Amino acid sequence: MEESVRDTVHVLAFDVFGTVVDWYSSVEREVRRVLPEVDANAFALAWRAGYQPAMERVRSGKTGWVPLDLLHRQILEDLLARFEVRSLPEPEITSLNRIWHRLDPWPDAVEGITRLKRRYTVCTLSNGNLGLLTAMAKHAQLPWDCILSAEVFGKYKPDPDTYLGVARVFDVRPEQVMLVAAHQDDLAAARSCGLRTAYIERPQEFGPMHSKDVSPDSANTLHAENLRVLADMLE
Amino acid sequence: MEESVRDTVHVLAFDVFGTVVDWYSSVEREVRRVLPEVDANAFALAWRAGYQPAMERVRSGKTGWVPLDLLHRQILEDLLARFEVRSLPEPEITSLNRIWHRLDPWPDAVEGITRLKRRYTVCTLSNGNLGLLTAMAKHAQLPWDCILSAEVFGKYKPDPDTYLGVARVFDVRPEQVMLVAAHQDDLAAARSCGLRTAYIERPQEFGPMHSKDVSPDSANTLHAENLRVLADMLE
Repeated sequence: MEESVRDTVHVLAFDVFGTVVDWYSSVEREVRRVLPEVDANAFALAWRAGYQPAMERVRSGKTGWVPLDLLHRQILEDLLARFEVRSLPEPEITSLNRIWHRLDPWPDAVEGITRLKRRYTVCTLSNGNLGLLTAMAKHAQLPWDCILSAEVFGKYKPDPDTYLGVARVFDVRPEQVMLVAAHQDDLAAARSCGLRTAYIERPQEFGPMHSKDVSPDSANTLHAENLRVLADMLE
Repeated sequence: MEESVRDTVHVLAFDVFGTVVDWYSSVEREVRRVLPEVDANAFALAWRAGYQPAMERVRSGKTGWVPLDLLHRQILEDLLARFEVRSLPEPEITSLNRIWHRLDPWPDAVEGITRLKRRYTVCTLSNGNLGLLTAMAKHAQLPWDCILSAEVFGKYKPDPDTYLGVARVFDVRPEQVMLVAAHQDDLAAARSCGLRTAYIERPQEFGPMHSKDVSPDSANTLHAENLRVLADMLE
């Protein structure tokens, strides 16, 4: 089976937050540094938890297109009020919001993507905006061939236009694209568009105090512990 | 002045065809190989000459969005008829059309962009489609931080939405973006949107039999012989 996957797939499209970069540790550490008075674990988890409802306002048409940087900023302002942070100067709010541009990669990510890039086209398919993903790639040394984003398609995942958009951009059939992600719902949506899928285990995605179910779903084409193991499978 | 340019500019957006890659030599050589019976010099120049009128049909609204790969294909089909090539099989037409994905870089391009990438965000701003530019970057080892294209903005250069789109994507002011190009009309359009501009001399852009005026225009912020020299100026 893997032989045929190697022959079929031309493009590997990577989910980014949680799959390639460890958002929890990077955000938690930055919150601890900038806001020593708040519970950094709770703040980091709440920031990320605001992400789906914020995108839902765009998906449902309640607002026009809003880039993720701005959604992050809106959630952050709510959180600063909720955690009773009163006097953070504007430049520090801006800088704190940009922590999402400076997320550290999982230890296997740069090696895995670099090895996979030799044989495949490796791109992002993230709800992060292009500017955010570009800054993050520079920070984390992620060697993408191309940065694709919800911003390019004007729709947030799991809209089918995002998954099918990758196939259209590279002029290949949907089954020639494999979505690589640490989230079963993202992978299921990609499969329903005809893409191949690879699940990546990230048991620590939500930090050491939160356990995450990383059990396999046989509907996925591949299941790998991390991106180094994925490279072993696909090389 | 250069000190202030270095302080102001954050993003270098590169025109690609002619500025970064030597389309003439790559296309002329491929035509000679695939169609030994035709005048490869004339064919290569005619293919490129079809590019502006083809984009004009999109710009004027005569047709909806058509990616450059398809415009190249339409021009190629006309040229095969005009040069009386009768029996080229379909897979070879497809492969010939993809020569635009396999253009070789000018000898200074990879070094120049690699050096500039240390200090600036380096991206493309090309009328080539994303798939074409990604394949070319893999072929020519061009280390872009991000591939931006007319395709992302739904408009071909010189539409202002393309130049201003770069500033919007990276959340910077227009004067913090510098367009790097070997074409004065492209640079003039960028300047009228508030971008800084750098002209790159490419006297051989149209091949050794065609001389190109590469004299300076003082309206440009910088004028450089090639991308290595641009890196000397901006590092």
